[in-house]
Amino acid sequence: MKILILNGPNLNLLGKRETSIYGTTTWEGIFQQLQKEFTPYRMQLFSFQTNLEGEIINQLQQADTWADGIVLNAGGYTHTSVAIGDAVKALSTPLVEVHISNLAARESYRHTSYISPYAKGVIFGFGPESYTLALHYFLIKK
Amino acid sequence: MKILILNGPNLNLLGKRETSIYGTTTWEGIFQQLQKEFTPYRMQLFSFQTNLEGEIINQLQQADTWADGIVLNAGGYTHTSVAIGDAVKALSTPLVEVHISNLAARESYRHTSYISPYAKGVIFGFGPESYTLALHYFLIKK
Amino acid sequence: MKILILNGPNLNLLGKRETSIYGTTTWEGIFQQLQKEFTPYRMQLFSFQTNLEGEIINQLQQADTWADGIVLNAGGYTHTSVAIGDAVKALSTPLVEVHISNLAARESYRHTSYISPYAKGVIFGFGPESYTLALHYFLIKK
Amino acid sequence: MKILILNGPNLNLLGKRETSIYGTTTWEGIFQQLQKEFTPYRMQLFSFQTNLEGEIINQLQQADTWADGIVLNAGGYTHTSVAIGDAVKALSTPLVEVHISNLAARESYRHTSYISPYAKGVIFGFGPESYTLALHYFLIKK
Amino acid sequence: MKILILNGPNLNLLGKRETSIYGTTTWEGIFQQLQKEFTPYRMQLFSFQTNLEGEIINQLQQADTWADGIVLNAGGYTHTSVAIGDAVKALSTPLVEVHISNLAARESYRHTSYISPYAKGVIFGFGPESYTLALHYFLIKK
Amino acid sequence: MKILILNGPNLNLLGKRETSIYGTTTWEGIFQQLQKEFTPYRMQLFSFQTNLEGEIINQLQQADTWADGIVLNAGGYTHTSVAIGDAVKALSTPLVEVHISNLAARESYRHTSYISPYAKGVIFGFGPESYTLALHYFLIKK
Amino acid sequence: MKILILNGPNLNLLGKRETSIYGTTTWEGIFQQLQKEFTPYRMQLFSFQTNLEGEIINQLQQADTWADGIVLNAGGYTHTSVAIGDAVKALSTPLVEVHISNLAARESYRHTSYISPYAKGVIFGFGPESYTLALHYFLIKK
Amino acid sequence: MKILILNGPNLNLLGKRETSIYGTTTWEGIFQQLQKEFTPYRMQLFSFQTNLEGEIINQLQQADTWADGIVLNAGGYTHTSVAIGDAVKALSTPLVEVHISNLAARESYRHTSYISPYAKGVIFGFGPESYTLALHYFLIKK
Amino acid sequence: MKILILNGPNLNLLGKRETSIYGTTTWEGIFQQLQKEFTPYRMQLFSFQTNLEGEIINQLQQADTWADGIVLNAGGYTHTSVAIGDAVKALSTPLVEVHISNLAARESYRHTSYISPYAKGVIFGFGPESYTLALHYFLIKK
Amino acid sequence: MKILILNGPNLNLLGKRETSIYGTTTWEGIFQQLQKEFTPYRMQLFSFQTNLEGEIINQLQQADTWADGIVLNAGGYTHTSVAIGDAVKALSTPLVEVHISNLAARESYRHTSYISPYAKGVIFGFGPESYTLALHYFLIKK
Amino acid sequence: MKILILNGPNLNLLGKRETSIYGTTTWEGIFQQLQKEFTPYRMQLFSFQTNLEGEIINQLQQADTWADGIVLNAGGYTHTSVAIGDAVKALSTPLVEVHISNLAARESYRHTSYISPYAKGVIFGFGPESYTLALHYFLIKK
Amino acid sequence: MKILILNGPNLNLLGKRETSIYGTTTWEGIFQQLQKEFTPYRMQLFSFQTNLEGEIINQLQQADTWADGIVLNAGGYTHTSVAIGDAVKALSTPLVEVHISNLAARESYRHTSYISPYAKGVIFGFGPESYTLALHYFLIKK
Repeated sequence: MKILILNGPNLNLLGKRETSIYGTTTWEGIFQQLQKEFTPYRMQLFSFQTNLEGEIINQLQQADTWADGIVLNAGGYTHTSVAIGDAVKALSTPLVEVHISNLAARESYRHTSYISPYAKGVIFGFGPESYTLALHYFLIKK
Repeated sequence: MKILILNGPNLNLLGKRETSIYGTTTWEGIFQQLQKEFTPYRMQLFSFQTNLEGEIINQLQQADTWADGIVLNAGGYTHTSVAIGDAVKALSTPLVEVHISNLAARESYRHTSYISPYAKGVIFGFGPESYTLALHYFLIKK
Repeated sequence: MKILILNGPNLNLLGKRETSIYGTTTWEGIFQQLQKEFTPYRMQLFSFQTNLEGEIINQLQQADTWADGIVLNAGGYTHTSVAIGDAVKALSTPLVEVHISNLAARESYRHTSYISPYAKGVIFGFGPESYTLALHYFLIKK
Repeated sequence: MKILILNGPNLNLLGKRETSIYGTTTWEGIFQQLQKEFTPYRMQLFSFQTNLEGEIINQLQQADTWADGIVLNAGGYTHTSVAIGDAVKALSTPLVEVHISNLAARESYRHTSYISPYAKGVIFGFGPESYTLALHYFLIKK
Repeated sequence: MKILILNGPNLNLLGKRETSIYGTTTWEGIFQQLQKEFTPYRMQLFSFQTNLEGEIINQLQQADTWADGIVLNAGGYTHTSVAIGDAVKALSTPLVEVHISNLAARESYRHTSYISPYAKGVIFGFGPESYTLALHYFLIKK
Repeated sequence: MKILILNGPNLNLLGKRETSIYGTTTWEGIFQQLQKEFTPYRMQLFSFQTNLEGEIINQLQQADTWADGIVLNAGGYTHTSVAIGDAVKALSTPLVEVHISNLAARESYRHTSYISPYAKGVIFGFGPESYTLALHYFLIKK
Repeated sequence: MKILILNGPNLNLLGKRETSIYGTTTWEGIFQQLQKEFTPYRMQLFSFQTNLEGEIINQLQQADTWADGIVLNAGGYTHTSVAIGDAVKALSTPLVEVHISNLAARESYRHTSYISPYAKGVIFGFGPESYTLALHYFLIKK
Repeated sequence: MKILILNGPNLNLLGKRETSIYGTTTWEGIFQQLQKEFTPYRMQLFSFQTNLEGEIINQLQQADTWADGIVLNAGGYTHTSVAIGDAVKALSTPLVEVHISNLAARESYRHTSYISPYAKGVIFGFGPESYTLALHYFLIKK
Repeated sequence: MKILILNGPNLNLLGKRETSIYGTTTWEGIFQQLQKEFTPYRMQLFSFQTNLEGEIINQLQQADTWADGIVLNAGGYTHTSVAIGDAVKALSTPLVEVHISNLAARESYRHTSYISPYAKGVIFGFGPESYTLALHYFLIKK
Repeated sequence: MKILILNGPNLNLLGKRETSIYGTTTWEGIFQQLQKEFTPYRMQLFSFQTNLEGEIINQLQQADTWADGIVLNAGGYTHTSVAIGDAVKALSTPLVEVHISNLAARESYRHTSYISPYAKGVIFGFGPESYTLALHYFLIKK
Repeated sequence: MKILILNGPNLNLLGKRETSIYGTTTWEGIFQQLQKEFTPYRMQLFSFQTNLEGEIINQLQQADTWADGIVLNAGGYTHTSVAIGDAVKALSTPLVEVHISNLAARESYRHTSYISPYAKGVIFGFGPESYTLALHYFLIKK
Repeated sequence: MKILILNGPNLNLLGKRETSIYGTTTWEGIFQQLQKEFTPYRMQLFSFQTNLEGEIINQLQQADTWADGIVLNAGGYTHTSVAIGDAVKALSTPLVEVHISNLAARESYRHTSYISPYAKGVIFGFGPESYTLALHYFLIKK
């Protein structure tokens, strides 16, 4: 089972900036932990990060040809991108939307998502464990 | 580890009504499956359902004295109850908010939650698996 | 034919308070009049009043197992209760929503109803005759 | 007792168009049924349909000089016509507002009515029976 | 100097209905008084009333070919008719908008006018004297 | 192929008023040009203009019995008429909505249309060529 | 008959600034013209201008003890001052609200007035003639 | 003089949770202090707390038959309960609305109250002294 | 203990205007009563009224240098003055906001206050007793 | 005559995804058809698709140096991109905005366009024929 | 070159109150620093502070007769005063709007300014340096 | 001192398009002038322009590793990009937001900025001098 974890803008800074909100673990650290945890279950994890909105769309379209599941954290684009929402809507591959922080406890413009209506499900607020739970979903639906 | 799963209004109808949205499994069926899955990990599950807003508050206050975690699906009260939100805010016990359906794909008045800002995290859209993932969270944070 | 007439908060005060809006007849008086009028048509009327939102949901769920029709005046909960709306949506039994006063001529927060979209039909403004017309509907649809 | 049933724009298409919403009975069929039902009670029914907003006002003003009751289905003008609302407000004759479909279950711009605040009462969602119930009101208030 | 006084829906009821808002003088009475007052100043007054929105547009277009001034009280169409606003915008003849009652003291939907931005000026709240002042304007601008 | 071009309020003033927005060609000039251009393709053009909202509905209902296509420019009624929108929705004949000016560059109340959701397609901003393109559509779909 | 004409902020600049909106006549010039016109009718005119919101309230309260009528142009405070609105509401003396420019054709925040609901009537858009018409009102109501 | 102090949801947690907002004194402590202070003035205090919205309505209706005054802190229901507002409106007994915290300094959804329009008066922000002031009101009005 | 009672615009009219809302006692009468009641408790009362927004700010800034408490009724400025709100925020002296009438039962623009978030507490609706309760607060906190 | 057809995000999926909305023809198929149709008229067509918002701006800026006309379908960016709107505003080359589906019949966030105010004209809802009509416009304006 | 620095309400408290937002330097200190910095460039600085809205207008009108530039910090009036905005619009002298704090990071009602549209430019967030930069602008434009 | 001046979409067109808003100087001209002015003060200026939202984020993240200050004009992305706002929030390097035109005098959607809350300060409306003032800030804070 091949899963793409797609991270959007500023998520390359994880563990380096605003650590009170996002924690002190870097993405590399999180990803290694995820690999360690899910590889035994024959799950292959792929990670991609980009700050470009359109590149997220490119990746979603390509992943739809090879991936068995997608975990998407679109960062700030979550709340403004009709285009990414359209791309998610067009997927055949199931996609889980995740966020590290509790969006509902932050600015009101973070309370809406153009992606959620077309996602299989949404998980947010658990810190890095949001990714763990998303992958766990693919495991139990296998 | 003792976990209370607290279900709000109309969730006693699971599997009996609106099965196109909520699926055909009854809550009893879901709960048995959850017990089968999590008992091996020494997790004790308790289930309570009520149609009364204030009874949810009563249960939350009591659970705060004995439970190690709470999974709350407040149903229609999610979107209208400041009082339940206040009760969740007052908890010491970590609480995970879950919903079976994808609220973001339904009426706009289901897009806001008075509970989310005070929950540890939020999971919705995965069907009965929303509960599974919520319990899984308590497992990995154990 | 068995019909449940379900009255919500403060409707036990009918004829005793705010008589300029609701008239001077008590609910007991109205109900006797309705029984007198509809019993000859083999219609059995059942009346239940509660001030508790969740109790309305309980009653709706139970009535769905035995009633041929429901007349619901949810009072102030009409405008705020997603949960009652959900309960109405889940019914198999046809339900008619009634109100005694002309809601459209009162405060703007009384102009929306979470119940109406799922009701068979809506009748308001006719005073106690709103109930008469609702029962008449069940008669002609018999 | 003389009652005018006044139908607004597009209601001449009843039974011919959008039959999934409005049913398959034509207005002529409905009206014959109403006459058959209410003539025995010495109720004289008059029917008028127009697509012109101002013509509805003309008819309301004239009916106020001879009718004992008015049943108004203003169709699409219901939601936009301050002028018809003013005309209804100026009536001495009691007027019942009816709609065939359940407006609360349709587009949000159909949820407001400039007529309702000045109507004796409002009935909607019962199909052609909305008219029957409106006439029944005049009967019981006779 | 030829002036058209154009009255919209329900203004034919002046002095007959809602006399607490509009006073007890009929339009005929008001018009005679206006003629008595302004004829000495060589002002010819023409009066037209209609309940039809489109007929108001027809009259405005025609008056633009012969009148030296227009006084328009569009009644309820004031607040809803983009089309009349467009017709006023297209006029070469100066137009004064009048209203008998104080719109600012009534329902909020009467606080906006599609006509005002294109009128020479606006006068409201003075009762029948609103017309007098409007005609006085044409006199002093003669 | 018979096409009705239906023009709403104030469009009889084309080329005579507000020429900076609508150009200097009269409707007669535009229509002659359209006839010259489309008659060779066996397209019969019919033109009707009215300032009355209800008359537009009358024409739409009648055209539905004989026309192969309708081009509608409802002028100011576009933005306010639920009733015309309902009439368009009820049509079997395909209808193209056109506007001469670029509505998106004008007042915000011209940015919404009750007609568009039920039109086959919408064309605006091209001046008189908006009509040409609409007719061209019927040609290529023939 | 004693009339106070009370002008608010920036109206001392009349004829000196923004002459395309307000014209080239100074307030002194306008006032002399008004005196010339109304003195023959035994009307005594008093003029007061201030840029201070509270001073307008002071003047209104004092004028209520001696004036037979008040003409108020509150300038920019019109749209923001609940306090001046309260002062106008408390008056026994009739007050006419005037504005020189056509507020309806300017920024949307100039479309609301806290004063209008409590004024006898409102006149705007006629340039300096707005004052003339206001005084004319007191003349004909004398 | 008999006064009912009616506390709504979560107020049983006073002094135990969120002490930075609500202080460290429990309700029992506050109530003893109030009794100590007001008993000398022949004021009998009764205290009732419930987390159920409908139970608050039950209590209000019953208190109306025996109490001389009611002090209501409806907690989170303050901002969402039309039904409690209706119950307060129906009272003959004077009711004072109190809140411990300064609602105006908290979330915007706490800035509106369905109860205030029907209360004799409102007191908030003074901590437990809000209750003291409310009782003091009944003392000076005795 | 020195307390400044600061009254804003139009409060000098108390007992003279709109007596149905504000009662028939003048401010002088209210103030004498307050002095009689609180002087025995060694409370020195100072009273100041102004119609000028900025003068209220001046007084607040000066009172902060000598007063032990401030009671502020800012009248109409309550709802519009960010500047007074800023002045209150900057105080060291505790300030209680009072209003004579029940603002929640009046126009919606009276439902918000720029002052409340920075006040120690808020009291409204009790008539002149609102002042009494505010002073009582300072007494019990002494 | 050189025309650039510029397609935005997800339009490379035409004919492959969501075929119920967008049809089953791929862009390659549509483009070949357009070339076949317009090449005889000496129109050279250039096609470019990108998922990147900024790349659309790049292309618009470059096309302004060589193209005689631009047809832009900005997909999801239409509704969110002030930056593309600014780029269109800065063009000398005429641009026609097209959409395949009827945006007015879809989600409300698709009802606004930052591009339309600066386009020569707008065409939507005709399926692939939207492109045909846009090119036809350049033909008749040649 | 003569520059007036005009400070509005509460700015006389600079350095004395809310020092976490506004810093610890008093206005006197800031002004001395500005004089030291800009006097060498033959810039004469004049400073005026007032808490009265209307006095700001008075000062602006007078400064327009003698100043070469104006620096305005209108404090809380920035967000509420149409009248000051009108005064700024009427100026011939260039005016720079400044604020010490970052308004965009504070309450939403501080995000709009009635002054900005008519200012030459706006500078905020730099602390006392906002004034320095404003003066620097006049220097480089000299 | 190394300063990055980062320009967003369409700013490469400066001096070439819409010169009435943005002036006739190209960015190259502006940048040379800035270098001439600030190089003597040992300030090294770096300039980067891109039309891609994500590329702005890339540049901000990189500049945070080497620059002493950033001047950002994000053009149209200012008003829509949560993602750039997040990137600015994550910076250690101080950033000044600038705009050439007076945004407050343009379309309302240009009145909000996702960047401002996280900028050191904001400067707009001064034309190219906005950049000069921004650099001057870094100079005086050196």
